[in-house]
Amino acid sequence: MSKQNISLSVIKRLPKYYRYLESINEKGIIRVSSKELSEITGLTASQIRQDLNHFGCFGQQGYGYNVKELIGELSKIIGVDKSYKIVLIGYGNIGHALYQYKSFRDLGYEFEAVFDKEEFTHEELKVQKIDDLGDFLKNNKVDIGIIATPKTVAQEIADILCEGGIKGIWNFSPVDLKVKNGVVIESVHLDESLFTLTYFMNSPEDFIF
Amino acid sequence: MSKQNISLSVIKRLPKYYRYLESINEKGIIRVSSKELSEITGLTASQIRQDLNHFGCFGQQGYGYNVKELIGELSKIIGVDKSYKIVLIGYGNIGHALYQYKSFRDLGYEFEAVFDKEEFTHEELKVQKIDDLGDFLKNNKVDIGIIATPKTVAQEIADILCEGGIKGIWNFSPVDLKVKNGVVIESVHLDESLFTLTYFMNSPEDFIF
Repeated sequence: MSKQNISLSVIKRLPKYYRYLESINEKGIIRVSSKELSEITGLTASQIRQDLNHFGCFGQQGYGYNVKELIGELSKIIGVDKSYKIVLIGYGNIGHALYQYKSFRDLGYEFEAVFDKEEFTHEELKVQKIDDLGDFLKNNKVDIGIIATPKTVAQEIADILCEGGIKGIWNFSPVDLKVKNGVVIESVHLDESLFTLTYFMNSPEDFIF
Repeated sequence: MSKQNISLSVIKRLPKYYRYLESINEKGIIRVSSKELSEITGLTASQIRQDLNHFGCFGQQGYGYNVKELIGELSKIIGVDKSYKIVLIGYGNIGHALYQYKSFRDLGYEFEAVFDKEEFTHEELKVQKIDDLGDFLKNNKVDIGIIATPKTVAQEIADILCEGGIKGIWNFSPVDLKVKNGVVIESVHLDESLFTLTYFMNSPEDFIF
């Protein structure tokens, strides 16, 4: 199965399919046609078939997709069939919210350590001093670093994470970070999202695309 | 100035320009060329000029853009020159983090009320019972509703918000909501973002686009 030459827009839809299928599965539904998926997702049935064919997920004519099987396939493609070790840097409001987010833990994302400017203890969690991050990464295998710090220190943290051999950074700081080759970065820019909402609220004529 | 026929990708870049210009402004820089903006943003200078020309923001040859003026123009285009009244529904981890996010308040997004399943008081904030949301919207002019509830109730909340005359919904619940015509919806799907990160961590060959 080659995943080459798959466009970013297809890849971005995979987590959406995964989410829809999980919610279908929770309802006890065993199989689903691309037409039914189309009704839920708003994408065309042929678009869905085309997307899933990229990854070798073939439904059967007149039967559709087996929901559990398709979830299993998508898990493998996305990579959520494995578990990931996380360090969280910045235990402010957003950091705290992410740390508490149960769904991620259930999926196999495990918090190994939490760092902030100074060390402190919060409800049995020992938050470590940021100065110790480098050493921690030397002594522990960590896959993902979450940056939820003020923007002024975010790049510095990203550098330490890259140096420490991290594979991916999930960035919540409102800044675009530079990382060395091979490190994946995904940013959640809340300000940009709120501004996009605001723009469209003020520009109803731009709704048509 | 017509904003017709502007592609979504251009619009999505505006908040990014705004953010970059704000950080340049904080450093006391008075003017900036599209070439300098290009170095910071990673976009080409001609792309930047083209984007900003859409909105009538013309730099001067050999001078560039006046940073404060451009921020002012972008504020008007995005709509952050006005203030917005917000109701927040769901005061769990994410809801609490958003409520505490100071930057949004500084920009003129004002929380009018917070709702959750049951009423309670948290650090002087009176969280109201969700059953009272409909009446609250009848008696108060609110622009934006933030949904930070479990996905099982998110659509129901969205319906009440639409019914109550809200103009925009900022959705943090992991579900795609249906809203009536004229209501703008912008979703932050944290699960999809984390899955995208995970996918690319497992598929380095997909880096090339």
